[in-house]
Amino acid sequence: AIDGDRLWGTIMETARIGATPKGGICRLTLTDLDRQVRDWFRAACTAAGCTVTVDAMGNIFARRAGRDNSLKPIAIGSHLDTQPTGGKYDGIVGVLAGLEVLRTLNDHGVETNAPIEVIDWTNEEGSRFAPAMLSSGVFAGVFDTAYAYARQDRDGQGFGEALDRIGYKGDRPCGGHALGAHIELHIEQGPILEAEGKTIGVVTGVQGMRWYEVTLTGAESHAGSTPMPLRRDALLGAAHMIAAVNQVALAHAPDAVATVGLIESRPNSRNVVPGSVFFTIDLRHPDDGVLARMEAETDRALRAIAGAAGLGIAMERVWDSPAVRFDADCVAAVQRAADAAGHASRRIVSGAGHDSAYIARVAPTTMIFVPCEKGLSHNEAEHAEKSDVVAGADVLLRAVLDIDQR
Amino acid sequence: AIDGDRLWGTIMETARIGATPKGGICRLTLTDLDRQVRDWFRAACTAAGCTVTVDAMGNIFARRAGRDNSLKPIAIGSHLDTQPTGGKYDGIVGVLAGLEVLRTLNDHGVETNAPIEVIDWTNEEGSRFAPAMLSSGVFAGVFDTAYAYARQDRDGQGFGEALDRIGYKGDRPCGGHALGAHIELHIEQGPILEAEGKTIGVVTGVQGMRWYEVTLTGAESHAGSTPMPLRRDALLGAAHMIAAVNQVALAHAPDAVATVGLIESRPNSRNVVPGSVFFTIDLRHPDDGVLARMEAETDRALRAIAGAAGLGIAMERVWDSPAVRFDADCVAAVQRAADAAGHASRRIVSGAGHDSAYIARVAPTTMIFVPCEKGLSHNEAEHAEKSDVVAGADVLLRAVLDIDQR
Ligand SMILES: NC(=O)NCCC(=O)O
Ligand SMILES: NC(=O)NCCC(=O)O
Repeated sequence: AIDGDRLWGTIMETARIGATPKGGICRLTLTDLDRQVRDWFRAACTAAGCTVTVDAMGNIFARRAGRDNSLKPIAIGSHLDTQPTGGKYDGIVGVLAGLEVLRTLNDHGVETNAPIEVIDWTNEEGSRFAPAMLSSGVFAGVFDTAYAYARQDRDGQGFGEALDRIGYKGDRPCGGHALGAHIELHIEQGPILEAEGKTIGVVTGVQGMRWYEVTLTGAESHAGSTPMPLRRDALLGAAHMIAAVNQVALAHAPDAVATVGLIESRPNSRNVVPGSVFFTIDLRHPDDGVLARMEAETDRALRAIAGAAGLGIAMERVWDSPAVRFDADCVAAVQRAADAAGHASRRIVSGAGHDSAYIARVAPTTMIFVPCEKGLSHNEAEHAEKSDVVAGADVLLRAVLDIDQR
Repeated sequence: AIDGDRLWGTIMETARIGATPKGGICRLTLTDLDRQVRDWFRAACTAAGCTVTVDAMGNIFARRAGRDNSLKPIAIGSHLDTQPTGGKYDGIVGVLAGLEVLRTLNDHGVETNAPIEVIDWTNEEGSRFAPAMLSSGVFAGVFDTAYAYARQDRDGQGFGEALDRIGYKGDRPCGGHALGAHIELHIEQGPILEAEGKTIGVVTGVQGMRWYEVTLTGAESHAGSTPMPLRRDALLGAAHMIAAVNQVALAHAPDAVATVGLIESRPNSRNVVPGSVFFTIDLRHPDDGVLARMEAETDRALRAIAGAAGLGIAMERVWDSPAVRFDADCVAAVQRAADAAGHASRRIVSGAGHDSAYIARVAPTTMIFVPCEKGLSHNEAEHAEKSDVVAGADVLLRAVLDIDQR
């Protein structure tokens, strides 16, 4: 019943906002480009007959009235922000498939029992402002608004200030807004569905993830005249630590992952021994107990390296998102929808974080995955087949109607 | 005969231009701050009765006429630019001691046989624009002006453009200007003089140094959903390489040094496996043969790491400044001056590069070192004792007069 060409058209149309030469999108949260895609989305939802509201975190809610508007809305949410090397599908497919569901319901004059809300959550990526899933986190009561507003990007701009600047700091408070359910369609961002030839991933949960910030303090000195034994080289120390973080993941194979994604070295001059380094660590595992052990091992390894190298070290855990198990009824609704549509499917745990991981704390929640080429995501070459995306949107529509019936 | 208080006063006065909270100076070449200190220097030299000219590389020549102005000038040159974490003495002492020599000669009504020229060489540091000693290099015919103008900082601004912007692209061509001698006073930037309790280093040469740029290409991917074996993590590869570069230096202890001073990782986002990394290598050794072996070992180690990690690698040598031996007559003049003034001295080879290393190709050249605290340089805490700096300036004056006599 979904209009696949129309859905694909909106994906390709909005992909122009922040398009990169390599075919991806760079549309960091709360930038002018984010404002542009938000304006587009708001206009499209208004044209589809929705009431659009914005909350204090910039989350956008497009509401299509139901038969009984005292019922809690069924939400379809994801995000329109991207990574610096983002693809055309991560998050975007979830929001635009939501819009397509609204349009399809309109086309067929379907009146649902409950209202339907399509949501664009602010700063899911966590690239410009850490942590990820910040605004769904506030919605779910994990963070408060003051904490969120105080987050700073690497240039020192505050989240609250940036939100104001693009004109998306809404009047409505964030949270305290009950949802009957929350369903999110997303590309898998991993290799499993493609490898097994499945069209639909019925997502049962999300693995645990923790973020850390590490600051090393050595001493700047001359690269030509400082003998090797007299150096306190913060970048050399960081190099040993990056290797150690990788070892922690390998020690918990095959499920653990560990990544140093961001590094800044100072003064970053060719002929100065680096005096200080800031870097981040991302540790993940489906089992929170193993994740805690990975943290302890990382902490131990880094402190040993710092000690041996004469470096000061400050290591702070800045984010802890425990493993999540999705709502059994919602999962069953997605499974029924996939089966009814005749798509090959499998249960799957998400390696990536999603707004649904936080919304699951305050509403029955699940997700639908579709394959992406080689599992590649956070990469400009990220690709999903149109037929898979359309299948996912179709399962989304069916699942929403299924939940609406019950 | 030098006025130590006056010399120290000029050092502290100009140290305000680009002063950092930690007591150092950040006055990168061709910035507005560099323009300010150049304007100050030009005015001071004009007030001291000099004719000031600027060449096409922005090198500033302050000429005090001699008895016979057909004689080649005796030059006193160093630099007023600094590192991002620069100190108050590196380079600055050499230029301002030159000014103090001019003022002292004026005070005593001394007429030299040859003219004296005090020179501020542009971009000695090589921090904003690689390589170091760029403009003394053009003067000496090592580089041509077109090559120099095309150098870019990490934001892509060209050297020629930046020089124009601060108004210091002079009419006079760079080079083809014969010098009778070139003497440079500088802090040692290393620990030897202090450790041995010597006031004066009689510099016999400069060690060899080579710079490299390395670009690694992996693949951006999702930090949460990309299994460890499927990653091509450019930063992890760089980490192993930084450790390997350090090993190359240790394998040629005690004289070799090796430094990775600058690194840029892309997209530099906490939850993206780094897709590409750019970093620099600085290798040095007093023996060019050993330096060549260090290069070969580095190249081999880096290619092996890249191969094992599935990373593309481009490694380019962007600078090669071979070991330099200074002019025996100039060295002898400095030794005589140190002895006559009664300063404890020793022969020393410079670990740092200096404009004198290039000027030595076109004029009889040497340097005078004075100790700096703990050998620390390229650090905001860089410190030299006033008495040592004054002693160095005194030796400089004596050496210049000695050379002028011969
Ligand atoms: N889906 C997605 O890419 N989320 C970003 C948050 C994370 O998993 O790091
Ligand atoms: N003297 C000095 O610090 N020069 C910078 C060039 C270098 O040695 O790297």
